[in-house]
Amino acid sequence: MTESVISSPHNSRITAARALLTRNGRSKASAFLAEGPHAVAEAVASSRHQVRELFVATDAESRHGSLIASAREGGAAVHVVSDRVLRLLRDTVTPQGVVAVITVRPEAGEALAAARLAVLLDRVADPGNVGTVVRTADAAGADLVGLTPGSADVYSGKCVRASAGSLFHLPVVTDLTVDHAAVAAGAAGCRVLATAADGESSLDDLIADDLLAAPTLWVFGSEAHGVSDTARAASDLVVRVPIYGSAESLNLAAAAAVCLYASARAQRR
Amino acid sequence: MTESVISSPHNSRITAARALLTRNGRSKASAFLAEGPHAVAEAVASSRHQVRELFVATDAESRHGSLIASAREGGAAVHVVSDRVLRLLRDTVTPQGVVAVITVRPEAGEALAAARLAVLLDRVADPGNVGTVVRTADAAGADLVGLTPGSADVYSGKCVRASAGSLFHLPVVTDLTVDHAAVAAGAAGCRVLATAADGESSLDDLIADDLLAAPTLWVFGSEAHGVSDTARAASDLVVRVPIYGSAESLNLAAAAAVCLYASARAQRR
Repeated sequence: MTESVISSPHNSRITAARALLTRNGRSKASAFLAEGPHAVAEAVASSRHQVRELFVATDAESRHGSLIASAREGGAAVHVVSDRVLRLLRDTVTPQGVVAVITVRPEAGEALAAARLAVLLDRVADPGNVGTVVRTADAAGADLVGLTPGSADVYSGKCVRASAGSLFHLPVVTDLTVDHAAVAAGAAGCRVLATAADGESSLDDLIADDLLAAPTLWVFGSEAHGVSDTARAASDLVVRVPIYGSAESLNLAAAAAVCLYASARAQRR
Repeated sequence: MTESVISSPHNSRITAARALLTRNGRSKASAFLAEGPHAVAEAVASSRHQVRELFVATDAESRHGSLIASAREGGAAVHVVSDRVLRLLRDTVTPQGVVAVITVRPEAGEALAAARLAVLLDRVADPGNVGTVVRTADAAGADLVGLTPGSADVYSGKCVRASAGSLFHLPVVTDLTVDHAAVAAGAAGCRVLATAADGESSLDDLIADDLLAAPTLWVFGSEAHGVSDTARAASDLVVRVPIYGSAESLNLAAAAAVCLYASARAQRR
């Protein structure tokens, strides 16, 4: 590699990348950071993401030769930086020598129009929950995850990590309102199912009556307040996951796993 | 209330209770702390738990009159403490004025002998995951959760919180080895199903073939290493949760939710 090593924290590329550690900075730049070779490789492989810049610590350069080559081939500017400078870009303790600046290609509503299984998170506030649901949705073969305004920032470090790479596998649409999503889903022939502890229909009845084989948009509400009145009104059915024991409720990510796998199974039978 | 207010952090009851903030202290005393009126009320109501002591902040005494009365009725010693002293006992930012010292009544292996649906966590290290699985197991109507040596401390503050009260709803057996659990399960007519990404049987096939209606002990392995070789050997089947999309795997708590609800549904049909 011929580049000189960036060792100043005041280098303009470094200050620009550091701004992406905050939600405000990510929002302004429409870009976010991914740390570690695994996440960076997923981003390089994703057709919906562009690795703009790749920062590599001096001692990691030899280890990550093929990753660096493929990032560069995909159009990334590669910068070798001192270990101290790399540490300024990290959100975790161990970025393992590489941090990338990533932009998302604009995702149109048409992703929803073709969806057979989609998820809308309605003001879900915890980034760990958002990341875990993205991972579960990916595992269940969902076509899209949307987030309403007021949800956690899906590009925060914690969410990117919790998604375990799945953020790079399926379209994730932010600032999608419930009404917009419901209209698009309806036009596409998707049934809209919201979940709530007091839902009128039990998930088990929907399974028994074979109502989950149809294209479905699942709406999950916030940890503290559940789905909004808007989401209830926009849904075809409000569904409860049955509680067989004494728990008051399921945690959001567990409820999503149960619902999404029930749909995935029904759609594949 | 007639007690004097404890305002010294060196009071012997306070130092004894503070020792329960560490795993070693909990293990020595066979006791743990629960924070906040909700968790304390669950512990008071649980037949498997004994609230030994209840610490109430001076400004919370009037708010929690009925909780204090029922704890005292159940045999708890109630101590009014200064806000500063209460803060020394907390693991969270807001214990909401009450912290209790709780002991667990010894749980015999017979709980497993009568189980129709049980869970064994095999060296699951993250307390948040352990607490979430306890909550999900409770929601799915499971009869018992066991943890092998090497699992997270189920009585740590993070785990108690993640269980959202479910820790007080069903028997939780710690230091249960895989072999002990498998033998007890076998004697009770429970099928032992371990989960692994490379499992020989798909969960969907088990559902389709109606093999989940039988009494079942589910074994889930560690986040990093999966189920142990011992657990594989002790199981009747190693089951994989199918991945329909591009995710490499499901997170542990999500996989447990999918498996436990599949069993609960089959057993109730």
